[in-house]
Amino acid sequence: VRRFIIVGHKASTSADFKLDDLAGGAGRLDVLLRCVNSAFFLSHSIRKDVEVLLVLQGPPRPPRTVRFCGPEMRYLNPDERSTGALVRNALLKSSAEEARSSPGVYVRDAGLAEVLASLPEECVLVYLKEDGAPLASLEKAADMAFVLSDHLDLGDAEESMLRRRANGTISLGATSYHADHCITIVNHRLDML
Amino acid sequence: VRRFIIVGHKASTSADFKLDDLAGGAGRLDVLLRCVNSAFFLSHSIRKDVEVLLVLQGPPRPPRTVRFCGPEMRYLNPDERSTGALVRNALLKSSAEEARSSPGVYVRDAGLAEVLASLPEECVLVYLKEDGAPLASLEKAADMAFVLSDHLDLGDAEESMLRRRANGTISLGATSYHADHCITIVNHRLDML
Repeated sequence: VRRFIIVGHKASTSADFKLDDLAGGAGRLDVLLRCVNSAFFLSHSIRKDVEVLLVLQGPPRPPRTVRFCGPEMRYLNPDERSTGALVRNALLKSSAEEARSSPGVYVRDAGLAEVLASLPEECVLVYLKEDGAPLASLEKAADMAFVLSDHLDLGDAEESMLRRRANGTISLGATSYHADHCITIVNHRLDML
Repeated sequence: VRRFIIVGHKASTSADFKLDDLAGGAGRLDVLLRCVNSAFFLSHSIRKDVEVLLVLQGPPRPPRTVRFCGPEMRYLNPDERSTGALVRNALLKSSAEEARSSPGVYVRDAGLAEVLASLPEECVLVYLKEDGAPLASLEKAADMAFVLSDHLDLGDAEESMLRRRANGTISLGATSYHADHCITIVNHRLDML
């Protein structure tokens, strides 16, 4: 499994947003939706070995995590609006326990700490950060996770939580990229190995 | 200049589409809008050395080309909907001659043949194709152009036009990617050189 965990610092935790206003009223949910696209889509198929976890930390009741599970995924289209509708449907569910909202889409009341704690012990967690080792040194593992942040940087508490669990830190170079672009670059690199 | 030319085989050539239906009624314009995002956006800025040409071949009066010019660009946001609005505004203009619709956005009645013919002679045109040379062999030039296609493959006539002008063919590996993901991979590779 290749897991991408993306922290949405302001992303809405209720379904009370408009699909016409994903970049505004939904707390930059557009950033996270593009990450779902980058993680899953190939030219004529969907990656089955991928899981995406969107950690939503915006109002009104953070945190909640929407999980996209490759092997079960259906009704996923590449455009932002239709993926936004899947997230909105998920947020309509009650989620004290993880609940399924559509095939391959799940929601639960969990934040970054719970998501990291739920990773299997053998999962190699890679922290993507400018001060990391070169991308060329990234090695493929059967179970890997990458953590990224939306348009805002990770907070100090999030970063130290991550550094504690991380098996390594990788840099994509001197340039800083949007989270969805980072995912595309990592996917391509792993495809080449 | 780093130029990305993307052929939209069904993409609308009139402004008569809804921003709520970019993937449907606008002829998969969503694919092209994601290419604009991948070409231009860095974490906290826009690439100034990039130009994107969207070659629209859908009804009602193909072809038309919308050009996004990095050095002059304003009002560009990363979400599909707002870039869709820029394209729609461009398509409202009459464009027998190239016309400017907003800062950095231009439209003219031109197709792939005219776009290729307008490239400066020194521009190194790279054709991205599965049978090309490895990405690692890509060399940086002061003026480069890359041609990509939307969700449909290039037609035979388009492909032979391209092969005639191309200075080389590069492959991104055995996996086929969406056009916007190809652009991200190429941008990252060139950033590393």
